[in-house]
Amino acid sequence: MPASHRIVVPVEWGDTDAAGIVFYPNYYRWFDRAAHALLRAIGFAPDELLRRGCVVPLIDSGARFLAPIVYGDEVEIESTVAEMRTRTFRLEHRVRRGSELVAEGFEVRVWARAGVGSPPEIRMEAIPDEVRVRLLDAPGAR
Amino acid sequence: MPASHRIVVPVEWGDTDAAGIVFYPNYYRWFDRAAHALLRAIGFAPDELLRRGCVVPLIDSGARFLAPIVYGDEVEIESTVAEMRTRTFRLEHRVRRGSELVAEGFEVRVWARAGVGSPPEIRMEAIPDEVRVRLLDAPGAR
Amino acid sequence: MPASHRIVVPVEWGDTDAAGIVFYPNYYRWFDRAAHALLRAIGFAPDELLRRGCVVPLIDSGARFLAPIVYGDEVEIESTVAEMRTRTFRLEHRVRRGSELVAEGFEVRVWARAGVGSPPEIRMEAIPDEVRVRLLDAPGAR
Amino acid sequence: MPASHRIVVPVEWGDTDAAGIVFYPNYYRWFDRAAHALLRAIGFAPDELLRRGCVVPLIDSGARFLAPIVYGDEVEIESTVAEMRTRTFRLEHRVRRGSELVAEGFEVRVWARAGVGSPPEIRMEAIPDEVRVRLLDAPGAR
Repeated sequence: MPASHRIVVPVEWGDTDAAGIVFYPNYYRWFDRAAHALLRAIGFAPDELLRRGCVVPLIDSGARFLAPIVYGDEVEIESTVAEMRTRTFRLEHRVRRGSELVAEGFEVRVWARAGVGSPPEIRMEAIPDEVRVRLLDAPGAR
Repeated sequence: MPASHRIVVPVEWGDTDAAGIVFYPNYYRWFDRAAHALLRAIGFAPDELLRRGCVVPLIDSGARFLAPIVYGDEVEIESTVAEMRTRTFRLEHRVRRGSELVAEGFEVRVWARAGVGSPPEIRMEAIPDEVRVRLLDAPGAR
Repeated sequence: MPASHRIVVPVEWGDTDAAGIVFYPNYYRWFDRAAHALLRAIGFAPDELLRRGCVVPLIDSGARFLAPIVYGDEVEIESTVAEMRTRTFRLEHRVRRGSELVAEGFEVRVWARAGVGSPPEIRMEAIPDEVRVRLLDAPGAR
Repeated sequence: MPASHRIVVPVEWGDTDAAGIVFYPNYYRWFDRAAHALLRAIGFAPDELLRRGCVVPLIDSGARFLAPIVYGDEVEIESTVAEMRTRTFRLEHRVRRGSELVAEGFEVRVWARAGVGSPPEIRMEAIPDEVRVRLLDAPGAR
């Protein structure tokens, strides 16, 4: 069963926009948080990956917004590995306030090596087998 | 000719992530900035709209990332009205560093009224004709 | 004993800057989160206050940074009510990574009413007695 | 005459908080932008400094807020070198909306070398003479 992970995100005081609802780029900030939390949950802590020069930058992303949320709301984000290719994987994120689906989105990330230096050189690589196995079958991920 | 607008965005010191490249939610932050700038350019300043209770929240969005960008880079975002429906419009954004396309994305926004109060009540409406005309044919928008 | 509250903050992937350390405005973002959490912990949830038109904007703030922190670090922020006046209160925040103090800061906030409308009218008021009592003596705050 | 620099900052749609006024950590984000712009203006582009391993992290900061600002406002930030020591310099920032001073703040930054690697090693150094001279006497900085 593909890896899946849940995080709880309280809407913060500064997360809303001039209309008083959550500023939409924050959903993507939460997706990023969810993606990194999922990697950590299946045994590949992104800070350790980074020390070994591995990063998972995005090539594609998207989100649909079904209901506005506001300060005081708390949402749960459920993230699931939805597709695996040689060098990329796709995560799907569902954002719920209680039982109500308020947004959903996806990220396509690549496995890459980041060279030291400024700016860093980013080079795509095949997802290592040990990572692939855990992304595709992670019974303990939740 | 549909409205189109360009803004220049310098990558700021805090815009990058632990990998040293732009943290991807910032592209959406820039799209939002570009969308509001386009509205302002065609004569509908969002702060004036807001005072009249009109806002343009999103229902859909997406972005593809073609090349990483870093602190010190400056990008130009060209935003174009790509589709108009009764209550929604679609903006497409192209992000270029010099002549290189580094990212592209879209936003589907709705015309809505935001009630006062906390949380605000958001109610969709038909895009007013005066706005529709300017979104679809804005010779002076650039 | 003055109210005191602790929150745990994991450094997120996008919280760092081009130097690879936490972008300093994020410490203030965390202080704001800590301040609102403290109010919630002593029985004055800021979203409920907001619905009644009450907000706690800042008039003064500051932070000293003692050691850089990075992605993968987790810090604890301990916030304490350090001073109370008729219309203002001062919070002091200590940021620790394990037992190491990595930053400390303060916020001076006012009790205010925010009128509806855009822009909102912000008007200072005396801190209500029920709030004052809980800020000054909150045995259950932790 | 000490270096001084001005930037113009439009308040963005997502810069405000649940009370509808600018979320205060954003002032610090603008101070950071102003500080890096000042360095660039006097001939020390921070991206070039970074490629040579030089960064200017903060050890102290503060801001007072005199009047709330909202979406649609545009502020000017005037930044001035207010103090120089062997390894640190202090910038003072004044934020004006038209002729009205709406906030003021400061940053104390150190000159440092950032080693490569994750996490980076940050090591304080004496401010180089060529930088010192320009910070203290920068006729063309504005």
